[in-house]
Amino acid sequence: MKTHKEKLVIVGSGPAGWTAAIYAARADLQPLVFAGRAAGKDLLPGGQLMLTTEVENFPGFPEGIEGPEMMGRFFRQALRFGTRVVTEEGVKDQSDLDANHGLYQTFQNVQSIDLSFRPYKIVGDNGFTVYAETVVIATGAKANWLGLENELRLAQSGGGVSACAVCDGALPIFRDQEVGVVGGGDSAIEEASYLAKFASKVHIFVRKDRFRASKAMQSRVLGNSKYEIHWNTEVVDVLGDSAVTGVTLRRNDLDDGDPGQIEHLPLRGLFIAIGHTPNTGFLGGQLASDEQGYLQLPNPGFTATETEGVYAAGDVADPYYRQAITAAGMGAKAAIEAERFLAEVA
Amino acid sequence: MKTHKEKLVIVGSGPAGWTAAIYAARADLQPLVFAGRAAGKDLLPGGQLMLTTEVENFPGFPEGIEGPEMMGRFFRQALRFGTRVVTEEGVKDQSDLDANHGLYQTFQNVQSIDLSFRPYKIVGDNGFTVYAETVVIATGAKANWLGLENELRLAQSGGGVSACAVCDGALPIFRDQEVGVVGGGDSAIEEASYLAKFASKVHIFVRKDRFRASKAMQSRVLGNSKYEIHWNTEVVDVLGDSAVTGVTLRRNDLDDGDPGQIEHLPLRGLFIAIGHTPNTGFLGGQLASDEQGYLQLPNPGFTATETEGVYAAGDVADPYYRQAITAAGMGAKAAIEAERFLAEVA
Repeated sequence: MKTHKEKLVIVGSGPAGWTAAIYAARADLQPLVFAGRAAGKDLLPGGQLMLTTEVENFPGFPEGIEGPEMMGRFFRQALRFGTRVVTEEGVKDQSDLDANHGLYQTFQNVQSIDLSFRPYKIVGDNGFTVYAETVVIATGAKANWLGLENELRLAQSGGGVSACAVCDGALPIFRDQEVGVVGGGDSAIEEASYLAKFASKVHIFVRKDRFRASKAMQSRVLGNSKYEIHWNTEVVDVLGDSAVTGVTLRRNDLDDGDPGQIEHLPLRGLFIAIGHTPNTGFLGGQLASDEQGYLQLPNPGFTATETEGVYAAGDVADPYYRQAITAAGMGAKAAIEAERFLAEVA
Repeated sequence: MKTHKEKLVIVGSGPAGWTAAIYAARADLQPLVFAGRAAGKDLLPGGQLMLTTEVENFPGFPEGIEGPEMMGRFFRQALRFGTRVVTEEGVKDQSDLDANHGLYQTFQNVQSIDLSFRPYKIVGDNGFTVYAETVVIATGAKANWLGLENELRLAQSGGGVSACAVCDGALPIFRDQEVGVVGGGDSAIEEASYLAKFASKVHIFVRKDRFRASKAMQSRVLGNSKYEIHWNTEVVDVLGDSAVTGVTLRRNDLDDGDPGQIEHLPLRGLFIAIGHTPNTGFLGGQLASDEQGYLQLPNPGFTATETEGVYAAGDVADPYYRQAITAAGMGAKAAIEAERFLAEVA
């Protein structure tokens, strides 16, 4: 099989991946992007924003922009300057893709990567193999969902289910309405207290009889009439056709064997705050990560990993902010660092 | 004089300032922005991008965008969600400014800020005074220029003078042309080696008879025919009406009292790499800074300063990347941190 040696390979195609590609392409590194594959469990080309309707907080779009349209713009900008992408038919550039309108359909995902020596060997899921002097890992993180059919449908259609209060909490549909948050950790309370600025009431659904959140965080919501805490409570369905109208709850504090008491609660929005899972499986533990799986960067504020010439950008290395604009900033940093590293070792 | 107490005051109106405003406004903090004042030495409303023609590397604009147009979009996005700005006539919001087309003309600059206790007192240059629970410092940095009339004219018109190779080096006007870099430090060599990807030859003009740059950096350009080093050489004029055609040089290695030998050298571009000056004068040394004046953040990767509720975002705290997209990312971070801090202390 024909192999390619590359200056820079980027894995992932969300805001971090494409911004790294824009910067690297303008620095004449002809970056090669493994953009992921749409099928099922694999990395989604375009990242989480492909599941998003309106993006209001990415600067530069005063009237807002649809997530997929924004990622299409990032993609075209990266290709304009010489970025190439790995499709199922091999490496393609702008001229190849101009003729093909199904831009997001045949990309390849990375199956494995060998970081034991440089240049690093990268194998795509079709067996396509490249060697890379430098690598940017920008594979993002998936929000964890409850896994309910209606939950996913209403999340993807922008119908009022979300995994990000900072992204969506300010939308008019939630103003002065009752909304719910699922989760019992620090981030669930952070989401709840953010939503309390807009909603008339915030319900918090906690599976156990206590929060995992720190005492300090708990004190924001306990004893505050803006919040109603539902202990021992699971959300078992989300109601509503095009927009959330309520949830079905099951109380779990009953005797063993009891199927639990079922209740309905009217709500206009549901925020799922049960953590994220960084997409790092293909790394096989070759880069240091924290207990949640986020890549750990030895010099915070820079994107270099502990492995020479390997950089991490975006949500895969960011448990804290997880915003499109912060991911894009990290992507630019990663490309600048890779370019300077290559100038040094060349 | 009437005073105002604010949840969040943002000082500065480049990519960092407006992105902080977008995030803070969507978090219902009704941020108040001191955007600077266009006159002379004061902080420029809109930041350094107001002096820029085409921006090619801010993700989301595949066909490029003019710097001032981009900043206008940031501004409108911030105001859309409830950001207010301090003008010479007091605080204005979107409805006030909709009627006024001269949006960038009457803003106020910060004259002084007292960070000794919270809420922090901030005085504008017209005497307008506010108290702020939290503050984001996003005042940026100015590129240092030689101070030649033709240099500034050709920089502002996009005629081939620039202070940022990463921003402008890939532009078609420099491809396969001879260009020059002014400076003798690490960043001058970084600029030169970036430009060498595109230019046919890179001239480096060093005022002294040696580099200040590290040995490792020097080794990139010494003994490489792609570069020509001009020791003891000052650029005393830039030639060209609408585009750079050359420079006038003065050799300084002559006897004392000799005015120096004057030479002309044809060039298509000139990159000034003699450092940046962060805009921190109004702080009066109340926040820790490095020897170049950049604000130092105690937890790199986060924007909190050592002073509770005070955050720094963008070039004012970034000696390394200095890109619009990295500044915007920091602005979002600062607003998120301020929002979480306020939720905690409220």
